[in-house]
Amino acid sequence: MRWILTLPAFLLFFTILPAQDQDDSLQVRSIFDVVLEQGEAYENLRVLCKDIGHRLSGSPQAEMAVQWGYELMKTYEPDRVYLQEITVPHWERGTNEIAWFKDQNGQVQKLSILALGGSIPTDGLIRGEVVEVRSFEEMEEKKEEIKDKIVFFNRAYDPKFINTFQAYGACVSQRWNGANVGGKHGAKAVLIRSLTHIDDDHPHTGSMGYEEGERKIPGAALSSQASNTLEKALEAGSVEVFLQMDCRSLGEKTSHNVIAEIKGSENPENIMVVGGHLDSWDVGEGAHDDGAGIVQSIELLHVFKTLGIKPKNTLRVVLFMNEENGNNGGKTYASLTKDDRHILAIESDRGGFTPRGFSIDGTEEQIEFVRGFEELLDPYYLHHFEKGYGGVDINPIKEYGDDVVLMGLFPDSQRYFDYHHSASDVFEAVNKRELELGAGAMAAMIYLMDKYYEPSVVKIRK
Amino acid sequence: MRWILTLPAFLLFFTILPAQDQDDSLQVRSIFDVVLEQGEAYENLRVLCKDIGHRLSGSPQAEMAVQWGYELMKTYEPDRVYLQEITVPHWERGTNEIAWFKDQNGQVQKLSILALGGSIPTDGLIRGEVVEVRSFEEMEEKKEEIKDKIVFFNRAYDPKFINTFQAYGACVSQRWNGANVGGKHGAKAVLIRSLTHIDDDHPHTGSMGYEEGERKIPGAALSSQASNTLEKALEAGSVEVFLQMDCRSLGEKTSHNVIAEIKGSENPENIMVVGGHLDSWDVGEGAHDDGAGIVQSIELLHVFKTLGIKPKNTLRVVLFMNEENGNNGGKTYASLTKDDRHILAIESDRGGFTPRGFSIDGTEEQIEFVRGFEELLDPYYLHHFEKGYGGVDINPIKEYGDDVVLMGLFPDSQRYFDYHHSASDVFEAVNKRELELGAGAMAAMIYLMDKYYEPSVVKIRK
Repeated sequence: MRWILTLPAFLLFFTILPAQDQDDSLQVRSIFDVVLEQGEAYENLRVLCKDIGHRLSGSPQAEMAVQWGYELMKTYEPDRVYLQEITVPHWERGTNEIAWFKDQNGQVQKLSILALGGSIPTDGLIRGEVVEVRSFEEMEEKKEEIKDKIVFFNRAYDPKFINTFQAYGACVSQRWNGANVGGKHGAKAVLIRSLTHIDDDHPHTGSMGYEEGERKIPGAALSSQASNTLEKALEAGSVEVFLQMDCRSLGEKTSHNVIAEIKGSENPENIMVVGGHLDSWDVGEGAHDDGAGIVQSIELLHVFKTLGIKPKNTLRVVLFMNEENGNNGGKTYASLTKDDRHILAIESDRGGFTPRGFSIDGTEEQIEFVRGFEELLDPYYLHHFEKGYGGVDINPIKEYGDDVVLMGLFPDSQRYFDYHHSASDVFEAVNKRELELGAGAMAAMIYLMDKYYEPSVVKIRK
Repeated sequence: MRWILTLPAFLLFFTILPAQDQDDSLQVRSIFDVVLEQGEAYENLRVLCKDIGHRLSGSPQAEMAVQWGYELMKTYEPDRVYLQEITVPHWERGTNEIAWFKDQNGQVQKLSILALGGSIPTDGLIRGEVVEVRSFEEMEEKKEEIKDKIVFFNRAYDPKFINTFQAYGACVSQRWNGANVGGKHGAKAVLIRSLTHIDDDHPHTGSMGYEEGERKIPGAALSSQASNTLEKALEAGSVEVFLQMDCRSLGEKTSHNVIAEIKGSENPENIMVVGGHLDSWDVGEGAHDDGAGIVQSIELLHVFKTLGIKPKNTLRVVLFMNEENGNNGGKTYASLTKDDRHILAIESDRGGFTPRGFSIDGTEEQIEFVRGFEELLDPYYLHHFEKGYGGVDINPIKEYGDDVVLMGLFPDSQRYFDYHHSASDVFEAVNKRELELGAGAMAAMIYLMDKYYEPSVVKIRK
């Protein structure tokens, strides 16, 4: 049974995968050697985190990051480095951001909060009784009760998911849509439990949305510990929360994607993209999200230069702007290059942790093709080559190209949401070797795909 | 070619592996659910690290850990919990431990050191010119020069090894044997570069040995940064180091392994061991080395109790004493149980990081048998089932049993030596979910091996 199932897969494998040779194994080894012995990703990340810091779209730090990326990539001497103009939203947290309540004993207790990105401000200091919900169904049931109250959306991460991105997926709607639905029901504000497994006092911010034409109310994230405190207080009786947030939207600004290009030696019309996003939330240092992906992508230029690798296809390293609150970098890149023939795009935006492989957005045959490299990548403990999401920034490319394979670097996910969108996402949370191994995995995959992938041979999307 | 090679492996697989059913997949899922949702490993580790702390053999903390382990395991109600008497060496660091040198400008510079475990003390404050070597060959060449000097054994970790344990393996002889060889050549003392990739100021201690009858000299580890400082100073000219260490050996003491036993329901004469080591070095909190392995092993009792799993074979959870400087716990356990029929022993002693699989010390057929569980364990990202070392504590069991399969839990290795044997190996360095996933992997493997492994069917060692 097993044997019968397995045999055709092997035959298929032989049909589509060109023979890899000893040279490939040596070249992959050389790629990892450069990254681990002379790698510059970690030092580049230090500069991005410590000299620039967090860099939300529209902030002066984001512009500094654009200039930094442009100048840094030039030092690796690709054929061309250029800026691609985009429009980004400009939202600022402002000065005052505070929440507290009085407990049953009359003690004032502070609640650690962060306004959600895009939230409107409160009108000065507001106060409201709290109504706790854990789902949109419960919100619907309690819609009368919610009016003029502050909603506490308290859906926690499910620890049973092995891949923590699945726990995120199961909770993210409370962040994105909680204030929106609360607003429709007449609530004053929405506080959400942070999207994280960790039990600490850092709130985790992130994007939220308003529906056009609906009533808008402020939204903020509570830290896990603040959520636990509030949950406990609500078990004891009714709770009134005091809240002020001075955040504001300041319209739009011009910003840029930063692109480095190495022209393909044989098929320059075929484009391979590798990238991450340059912007971050406005707390911490955006080290894992997504400083890691940025310096790993740039490291490709370092590796190819050091080893003298000249890709057959054109390689673009793209530092996307505005992934966090709009994805205008990804969308604009895709639409401006819609006539280009993209054959591959790889994104790193899941943190600088030990890589386990790649999630692949492509046809079954394309995925099978990539699995053909498994043996070459096994010495680097890369075993995950499964169908999955590529990445937010590269996803729009798919709309314009049937041939393109999208891949997301797939690192170990356990610690990602400990730091994600919070003040604790700092340089010190990144391990040098884990970061470097991710850069090595991306460079090796680009090297192999550039050498072997022929869209005309492998069955494509449509 | 590939197909021809693969086919026999599949046939072999069918010959020896009993059919796994849907129940197994559900039971493995339940095991991980208990560990992730109601797991007690992390809280147990907190107590071990914070209430007891580091616990070198012979120390009062080590005895407190014995009592802690004994009482804790009783709460999970196995059939029996008992102490197994062993003899351990008693070595203490003492009060004064300092090293410094004067640089070319006359500035006094401190060097962060830790005496190596088992080292003799200096005779008060000693001073000596430094001779740098990077290999035993170089030491041999410089043996005239070394006399009356302080040897600086400066062999660094090779970053090119993907598995950091290989970097350790390539360097550990300078720690174990550096002072021994230096002593023979008439050196005053030996300072070694710490066995780590990390660039910080924590020295990493560990065991060293003296050859019977040879001249003994003191040995200490320098932090990476102290090693870099000294290396640089030596490039500028000759350097005189001042050194004092008051460490001492205080003979032997009585201590204990702590053992919990669940009697097998069908084959009680077959013994499965799962364990780690209770002792640690005398700095930090022994969190990854090996508090993690201890609480992961104990978690098995929690999981089996919670799910009502009654093993067919007898299960022993063994908290071994004295792995770090003598392995008397492992040796004594094996010799006292030499008439028992051990069929399996699993050790966790490579840190509480995300598990990648198991390294297996057994015959090719035994390894192939274990690989039969790969599909069941794939949802937990366990992919590494390769021939390799089981563990220091369980290794002596092999001498007395041909049937026994030894396995070492194989976690991601990148961060292990950042903490290993240093003051930074504390509770905070352990991620809750990574620790728990390791406990889940061990419990699942024990569950599956208990159910399916029949030593009489699978080809054994001799």
